[in-house]
Amino acid sequence: MTPTAPTKRIPVAVLGATGAVGQMFIRLLADHPWFQLAEVAASERSAGRPYAEAAHWIGSDDVPARVRGMTVLACDPATVTSPIVFSALDASVARDLEAAFAESGRMVLSNAKSFRMDDDVPLVIPEVNADHLSLLDVQRTKRGWRGAIVTNANCSSIVAVMALAPLHRAFGITKLFVSTMQAVSGAGYPGVPSLDILGNVIPFIKDEEGKIQTEILKMLGRLDGDHVVPATTRISAHANRVPVENGHTICMSLDFEREVTPQQAITVLRDWTGDDACRSLPSAPARALVVTDEPDRPQPRRDVDRGGGMTVTVGRVREDPLFSIKLVASGHNTVRGAAGASVLNAELLVASGRISA
Amino acid sequence: MTPTAPTKRIPVAVLGATGAVGQMFIRLLADHPWFQLAEVAASERSAGRPYAEAAHWIGSDDVPARVRGMTVLACDPATVTSPIVFSALDASVARDLEAAFAESGRMVLSNAKSFRMDDDVPLVIPEVNADHLSLLDVQRTKRGWRGAIVTNANCSSIVAVMALAPLHRAFGITKLFVSTMQAVSGAGYPGVPSLDILGNVIPFIKDEEGKIQTEILKMLGRLDGDHVVPATTRISAHANRVPVENGHTICMSLDFEREVTPQQAITVLRDWTGDDACRSLPSAPARALVVTDEPDRPQPRRDVDRGGGMTVTVGRVREDPLFSIKLVASGHNTVRGAAGASVLNAELLVASGRISA
Amino acid sequence: MTPTAPTKRIPVAVLGATGAVGQMFIRLLADHPWFQLAEVAASERSAGRPYAEAAHWIGSDDVPARVRGMTVLACDPATVTSPIVFSALDASVARDLEAAFAESGRMVLSNAKSFRMDDDVPLVIPEVNADHLSLLDVQRTKRGWRGAIVTNANCSSIVAVMALAPLHRAFGITKLFVSTMQAVSGAGYPGVPSLDILGNVIPFIKDEEGKIQTEILKMLGRLDGDHVVPATTRISAHANRVPVENGHTICMSLDFEREVTPQQAITVLRDWTGDDACRSLPSAPARALVVTDEPDRPQPRRDVDRGGGMTVTVGRVREDPLFSIKLVASGHNTVRGAAGASVLNAELLVASGRISA
Amino acid sequence: MTPTAPTKRIPVAVLGATGAVGQMFIRLLADHPWFQLAEVAASERSAGRPYAEAAHWIGSDDVPARVRGMTVLACDPATVTSPIVFSALDASVARDLEAAFAESGRMVLSNAKSFRMDDDVPLVIPEVNADHLSLLDVQRTKRGWRGAIVTNANCSSIVAVMALAPLHRAFGITKLFVSTMQAVSGAGYPGVPSLDILGNVIPFIKDEEGKIQTEILKMLGRLDGDHVVPATTRISAHANRVPVENGHTICMSLDFEREVTPQQAITVLRDWTGDDACRSLPSAPARALVVTDEPDRPQPRRDVDRGGGMTVTVGRVREDPLFSIKLVASGHNTVRGAAGASVLNAELLVASGRISA
Repeated sequence: MTPTAPTKRIPVAVLGATGAVGQMFIRLLADHPWFQLAEVAASERSAGRPYAEAAHWIGSDDVPARVRGMTVLACDPATVTSPIVFSALDASVARDLEAAFAESGRMVLSNAKSFRMDDDVPLVIPEVNADHLSLLDVQRTKRGWRGAIVTNANCSSIVAVMALAPLHRAFGITKLFVSTMQAVSGAGYPGVPSLDILGNVIPFIKDEEGKIQTEILKMLGRLDGDHVVPATTRISAHANRVPVENGHTICMSLDFEREVTPQQAITVLRDWTGDDACRSLPSAPARALVVTDEPDRPQPRRDVDRGGGMTVTVGRVREDPLFSIKLVASGHNTVRGAAGASVLNAELLVASGRISA
Repeated sequence: MTPTAPTKRIPVAVLGATGAVGQMFIRLLADHPWFQLAEVAASERSAGRPYAEAAHWIGSDDVPARVRGMTVLACDPATVTSPIVFSALDASVARDLEAAFAESGRMVLSNAKSFRMDDDVPLVIPEVNADHLSLLDVQRTKRGWRGAIVTNANCSSIVAVMALAPLHRAFGITKLFVSTMQAVSGAGYPGVPSLDILGNVIPFIKDEEGKIQTEILKMLGRLDGDHVVPATTRISAHANRVPVENGHTICMSLDFEREVTPQQAITVLRDWTGDDACRSLPSAPARALVVTDEPDRPQPRRDVDRGGGMTVTVGRVREDPLFSIKLVASGHNTVRGAAGASVLNAELLVASGRISA
Repeated sequence: MTPTAPTKRIPVAVLGATGAVGQMFIRLLADHPWFQLAEVAASERSAGRPYAEAAHWIGSDDVPARVRGMTVLACDPATVTSPIVFSALDASVARDLEAAFAESGRMVLSNAKSFRMDDDVPLVIPEVNADHLSLLDVQRTKRGWRGAIVTNANCSSIVAVMALAPLHRAFGITKLFVSTMQAVSGAGYPGVPSLDILGNVIPFIKDEEGKIQTEILKMLGRLDGDHVVPATTRISAHANRVPVENGHTICMSLDFEREVTPQQAITVLRDWTGDDACRSLPSAPARALVVTDEPDRPQPRRDVDRGGGMTVTVGRVREDPLFSIKLVASGHNTVRGAAGASVLNAELLVASGRISA
Repeated sequence: MTPTAPTKRIPVAVLGATGAVGQMFIRLLADHPWFQLAEVAASERSAGRPYAEAAHWIGSDDVPARVRGMTVLACDPATVTSPIVFSALDASVARDLEAAFAESGRMVLSNAKSFRMDDDVPLVIPEVNADHLSLLDVQRTKRGWRGAIVTNANCSSIVAVMALAPLHRAFGITKLFVSTMQAVSGAGYPGVPSLDILGNVIPFIKDEEGKIQTEILKMLGRLDGDHVVPATTRISAHANRVPVENGHTICMSLDFEREVTPQQAITVLRDWTGDDACRSLPSAPARALVVTDEPDRPQPRRDVDRGGGMTVTVGRVREDPLFSIKLVASGHNTVRGAAGASVLNAELLVASGRISA
């Protein structure tokens, strides 16, 4: 399957466009070769105002020139007309709004947790489980929607799965320990108060451990006809917030169906290129996974931007005295772990003909 | 056994007095009720200079007034005459120097790794394994030293063991997963360059994981006549450096010889008061272990100074989907995890009659 | 005038008790020798709940035991009955509420900006301008209140004035440049989002420069009968936020009515002990001002807690190529610069007989 | 004068290539259109080793592929043969080594302080004082060198001058108050220990204030035949280190030969494009100076990378109660303030025919 660019750029909208993930969508879509950022929408409080005024822009870049003056719309399928809709909506409103957009015929690429674990909703990383997109047929049939919803996982689940998927395919992961050190941008804006995190660690992120323990299983799961059989890996997760701006760092210990040496694991990780379907998608990095030999890497500040933030870096692959191997993975939580994930999903949908221009 | 104060304050010396741990020794000993800080010693570079000038003092307090002008001595048993010697020496020189001091009749309380794992050297946390001090008789016999060496463990091992010991005694820990987030003060001064750690995580600390995986076993081990039978717990450790000044945070998952509920674990942790021998030692905190109910604690910046830095705080005791329970422990790495550990050991030696005033 | 302790502890209330400054009041008043913390009050949202539950406690200590269970009251003079009221209210509500409390006979010690610059309201630092308290007679006469309001200045103005007052008295400051680097705790809680300040500087704090440029003049002003003649020093202020938890650092360049050498300035600063009236007040530090010789001090993290947070540290007193001298001052913004300032003011009122027990 | 690209890429060397500024040179020169990075040189300790092994690379990027394996040379004009030499040498060795290279015929672009204030050595920012390069003729005559030395200023002086130069040309700055908040990368690597700067401010940088107070005057000075007449602006500088990775933030108050309104200043700053000579140099940013209207900008983390780190951002231009106007400038200290400055100088030398390919 060769990715096929659409003949003309497809209009897209961003819901929740003023928040931290919404801003990352703006950044990634402002000059996208396949998509035209046509509409930005947000809460009632922002609606009607020019984007640059409604959003407290938190990046080190400027608001893209052509988006600055765009009027923020309300998040309503009657107002927002683009056929593709990227959702950075808050979980509190995402379920109803995303359903409304899907019902009215849009392809919704959601970054919210609301639909992730629904049986008929694909939870997809293109390099890992592109085949799960066939759940869309089930979804349309079951829900009677003219459109559909495709979700991407929680930021730390995505970064972890990028490192886990090749090893799971090769050796079958039976047990998994996960301990995360997550960047503050994962909590949105204003998010974590500086008084709580400066020079500190918070060993708690609401609902995060549960998400890691379930979403990973679905993504590593096997498509069986009209449903996904989740992986049976037993997972224990510890989620921590650290004073890092961008980039989640994840320590993992893995046990497999058979003995696996660090060298075998490294070889599998190095050789892995992910599903062919996404090889030439515009947002796909040259390498989805990079294995570093440096003894003290990956580090969020130093590895976060690899591949435009779409590459996950793995390092310290070594023997584990308790399980089989230990390793550390690091990736950009708001690019690969959020907005970039949705955009890549949308590109895959277009390239695979599931969205027609 | 009731702790007995010495009839007069015993002169003590600090070796490696100008470094980060050495400074903490100065702080803890400057006004100690049982010990008189009589001598400070450091490398040749510092010897002969007034302490306040030789040391780049890194605390938020002042150099104790009576120490400011003390002349720094060379680390030589011919020069340093105190009967009790606290060693904050670098591992590179500790083995030879500490042996020389022990040979010449001093009781050496060492914070260095050199002798920790030697069979005849006690690795002690008074509340946990005070009985291991009987190895001193073996040590004297075997080595023919007039003095002796007592060691304390690596900072993260100590903090972990404070939380593990009560559970191990009660239920027998069979498997242990450890993921640390360690403060920069653990690396000494100048230690970690700011360019390496500001807004960053370094998932690597040289030799740390090995220390955690072995020292814990010795401390949890059982004294059997003239030697310690290490615990058989299988341990996997991930060690990380985070931009925190003081206080190590340690995520752990534990499996036991039998099923243990979080509530059972909490009860054991709450009830634990440690060995009676150290209950009234001057540096022993009111509670060696505090269990917090707050959902997002312990946090290093907020819990590090509890009990003058000698209390370890445990929180988030909860079910583990893979092992039996998960929890988080946090403690002050240069107090409970280093200088305070040595001082408490010395107090125990005095109180138990192993050092006579 | 010798401070006189009240014969019995006077009941006091804290308004705005759940916020960052409110919490500092709780901390300072929980075991106060002269005051009994009898009531805590906050917004409607918190009223009726136990304090420990209503407040997101942000310190590294625990909520004082006897305050944990106190029921939070509404900020209403009909409900809150203590004769002394400490106000950590938000500026948005402070003016009306503080006036209501003063009208109903209470002595209000306000940390809010609302009344600071009113002609008949004293803006006081006990060591500096205790005599300004005689404005209270004017205030009562003019407003017909049975109680009164005494204010303390903005945090950075207070820290600056502590260093400026002795020099102004000695030499007359004609011109002053001020450039601040202010801690995040000055913005309250949740205050500054971590995404805005981690590894960053924000060269802007709303209204801060104006406050510095006016409040300093009033505090350095001279009481003339029934009013204060403000100092005529011309002031230019730059206010910056930096990623520091506690402690404002203030660079200043000063010009005087005559030539002043650094040594002359240092002598004046060293000799200054402040108004005798406050020498033995419970919250007065042993030295209100400490001059350091260290070339790289004061530093907020290292000097902030001197004198329990009530001492301002001054350093780097040196020649200025443009004005006469340059120096750096540092002080604890929520102790000396906020809650501690109000408490010290209250103590002075008691000791001077303006509040009777 | 139109910049003229050399007909073929000119071989260049970097001295002090393994340090923090040296690494920035590597980054900027690895793919330079006019220069070919032919040699890397460093101290004896590094000489003979592959670059990637000798240098502790501190960036968030990888060591450029073609530099990784280059053998580090000793800093000796007999070994290093490139006609253009960029010096990131330590001040302790720079004076002798740079002279040796200049004597042996090389054009030395120095980032060190050693020669900056020598009468016959140009201290140049191309946009500001390109005409000062004519001092090279004086230098060659006076010293008898076949080559020559061109210097760039200290990082904070450069950032300040970028904002000051247009205003000085327009209005004549008579008095200047400067207060800096400087990034840790300015201190090189390992540089500032994390224990000194995490959550802290250090109000002292060795020699920095003196450099600011003299270098600015030379750069703003007027070329008069064979020498530069320094500006007569009276300057007072306060230099501070803050926990920021990259980007110096500089608060300034300016007085002029006549009254200047903020609007007049903004207009001049907005209109300024710098010397035509450097408009199309490869490293010249689209705009050397950007004036922001945002009330809380510039901020180092958000503005540091503008123009590839070569643009200085100015904001908060407002009235000053004491002088005429206040403003804040921010720029990248190791790009515009160090390596990028030298590279731009070299480009100007080539474009103006002072270096022939």
